[in-house]
Parts: sequence; structure tokens; C-alpha cells
Amino acid sequence: MITSINNERIKEISKLNNKKYRKEKGLFIVEGEHLVEEAYKHNLLVEVYSLNETSYENSYIVTESVMKKISNLDSIPNIIGICKIKKEEEIGNRILILDNIQDPGNLGTIIRSAVAFNVSTIVLSNDSVDLYNSKVIRATEGMIFNINIISRDLFSFVPSIKNQYKIYGTNVESGTLLKNVEKVEKCAIIMGNEGNGVKKELQKICDENIYIEMNKQCESLNVGVATSIILYELGR
Amino acid sequence: MITSINNERIKEISKLNNKKYRKEKGLFIVEGEHLVEEAYKHNLLVEVYSLNETSYENSYIVTESVMKKISNLDSIPNIIGICKIKKEEEIGNRILILDNIQDPGNLGTIIRSAVAFNVSTIVLSNDSVDLYNSKVIRATEGMIFNINIISRDLFSFVPSIKNQYKIYGTNVESGTLLKNVEKVEKCAIIMGNEGNGVKKELQKICDENIYIEMNKQCESLNVGVATSIILYELGR
Repeated sequence: MITSINNERIKEISKLNNKKYRKEKGLFIVEGEHLVEEAYKHNLLVEVYSLNETSYENSYIVTESVMKKISNLDSIPNIIGICKIKKEEEIGNRILILDNIQDPGNLGTIIRSAVAFNVSTIVLSNDSVDLYNSKVIRATEGMIFNINIISRDLFSFVPSIKNQYKIYGTNVESGTLLKNVEKVEKCAIIMGNEGNGVKKELQKICDENIYIEMNKQCESLNVGVATSIILYELGR
Repeated sequence: MITSINNERIKEISKLNNKKYRKEKGLFIVEGEHLVEEAYKHNLLVEVYSLNETSYENSYIVTESVMKKISNLDSIPNIIGICKIKKEEEIGNRILILDNIQDPGNLGTIIRSAVAFNVSTIVLSNDSVDLYNSKVIRATEGMIFNINIISRDLFSFVPSIKNQYKIYGTNVESGTLLKNVEKVEKCAIIMGNEGNGVKKELQKICDENIYIEMNKQCESLNVGVATSIILYELGR
């Protein structure tokens, strides 16, 4: 049983709350039974720290104060898991590109919907909120393990796929009505920042802009909602 | 200029962060320029407190420490508004019923989407998160002023509209595929709690259950996303 927050191992693990350290180690933390179980199912679980005994390998019992030191939650979980960052896979036919999404809850929700509607790869711009931020992971409801997610400089990535994929931008003001968008085999959809939308320089590279028709009283939808509606419609 | 956090008026206004007091006074707080402007446009703005001079009537300048006392935000806004709670209107043809939604961000997002997709009235169950919670209001992006929202005991409300409206429940496991749902003039859609869905007793009263088809790896969508997709599809 680990009782001291000054234990070397605990100090190392707490550092995983820092983005730079996560990248260096190729590890991240998940909190709560559901996420630990999902990590285990995907062979990405390395170690477990919990308040009680568990049936996982490499499982350590810790005190509540130690758990509090590691956890990012206001009320500490019973269990946390240390997970390997997933290896990159082939990008596949259905790509979702996220240009500077900043809200962790939005990113988590988008990942969950992307799994639901069969996106093959999510491409995060380098200026997006960090994927392994604890709030992002919680909002994915475990779906972070079920999809290929990569980080790229979009100004080089988007042109590099331009001739193989139909590239859809999104715009809150104009474009092809979502219901009229042609469904193609290989497509990439670019969704933009909460306040500013897709960067102008990226919009220029798009083959077409998608527009969701809505009541004029409403200027725009939440970006998680807009992304999900587009993925739902184009996935049918 | 109000400089003291012990000023009687400031003490009264701070109490509006309490649900019971909001109800008693029929007032609530909005934070930031966009929401104050929306309240003004809807003739619901009663008073304004701000760090600088404004062009609103009944506007008071306050110090940063006073603003901090009133505000719910981590970084204080330049301006807050005291608003009247909107009067109830006719429920109209398109009703969205929310059964015990708990997350403020989800409720705010749903309100925003409900305006976008022409819902006439949102009915909140008495056990839902409070509508005038500051996080809810922020997530609506000002749309809270553009729609009729009422609170009801759903066990008496839903049966009371049963013969006039087609009532759709939602279920993450089975039901009529969303794309096959018949579009009717007068309908009410019931969305359930984040963890537990629609209460069994309410599901029994529904005429039909709606089901959103998705990849089996994903158990469910975020409730704000699911609601928005249903409203988008049925609004077409």
C-alpha cells in the first residue's frame, strides 16, 4: 500500500497531468472504473492505482490522500489507470479534421460521436486542446480508445490529402445545405474553432462548404452538436 | 460607483446566485456583453452593473472586487445584467420535454439547438438542473431569451397532452430508426437523464420510441448531441 504523496512512483505519475511529460513518456491517466476497463480491453492499460484491491495486473493500493494527489476530479475516483498512448494507424476513408477546438468537453463529445458515426481518423491541429487532458478523456466516455486520432500541422496535412479525398469545410453563413451534400467514399470534414470557425486559409483549400439550415434567431450551433449532425447525415 | 461588497444592493444581487431567491424575485443574472445585449433586445433587462460606463438605463459602475462578489466566472466579466424571468407562453406545436437533465452545459446546448430547429416550448422536469444556473445560461449563448421554457411535473404534464400530441420517447437500445420516424404536425419528444435515460413510467406513456442508429462500439451519444440530431432530422 502506498501511503505517501512523496513516494517516487506517485510523484512520477502526478507529472502525467502535464502535457509535455505525457508526450515524453507516451503515457496518460484515465480516472474511474469505466475508463480503466476500456483501456484494459484495448490492451493499453499499463498500471492501476486504486483505493481497494482489484483484479488487474500491476495494481497498487493507495490511500485517499495519494489518490487526491494523482486525480484531477473534485471527488476522487476509486481507481485510476496509466495507459499507453495508442499507435497511429492508417487514416482510412472518413476523416474528421479539427481546427483549433479549445473546449475539452467539446473535443470529448466529438470523439464520442465520431466513433458512433464511423469516422476512421480524427486529425487534431497542433493548436487544439490536448487530447489527453482529463476533461477531454472523461467526455469521450471511453471512446478515445476506439478511434485513430493524430495531431498534424493542418497547413501541410490538408493539401497533402487534397487529391485523394473530397474536402468539406463548414461555415455558419453559407454553403451547400447539409441534406444536399453528395456522399462520397473518401471524404474529410474540417470543423473549426468555437468562436472563429475554420481558418480562412484552410477554407480556401476546401472543395465545398457545408451549411446546416437553422432558424435565423440562432447564429450557430455548439461545435460538438454541429459536427455530430454532419457526421450523422453524411454517414447514412 | 459602488465600491463595497457590503453595499445592500450588491448583497441582494449576489443572493440571485441562489435558486430559491431567483424564484422568489423572478430575476436572474447574466454575465458578459453578449448576454446583456440579448436580454436588452428581449425587453427583459432590469439593471446593469459594469466596470465601465454603459449606455443602458439603470446602469451602475462597480469595482472589480464588487464584480467578483456577484460573478460566477473564474475571470470576471466587464458587465452583468439583472433580468426578468420570461412569462410563460402557449406551448405550440413542437415540444421538447427534458426528463432530469443534470449537466448545465448539456441543458444550455440543448436550448441553443432547440431554437435552431424551431422547438416551440421546452418542458423541464422539476428534478432537472436549474435553468438559471450561470453555466446553463452561458452555454445557451443567449438563446435562453428566444424560446418558451416551462417547468412541470412530467407525470401529470405528459398525460395531459397525450391526445393532442404524438409523444416520442428515446431509447439507446431499440425503437424506430430516426430516419424512418413519421413527421407529424404536433409532436413532443422526451429526452432523458445523462446516465439513466427516460424514466420507465414516462416511456410507457410514449406513442413511439426513437432510436439513432450508430456503430456498436459506441453505447450512446452525449444527450445534447442526441437531442440536436433528433430535432434536426424531425425539423426537415
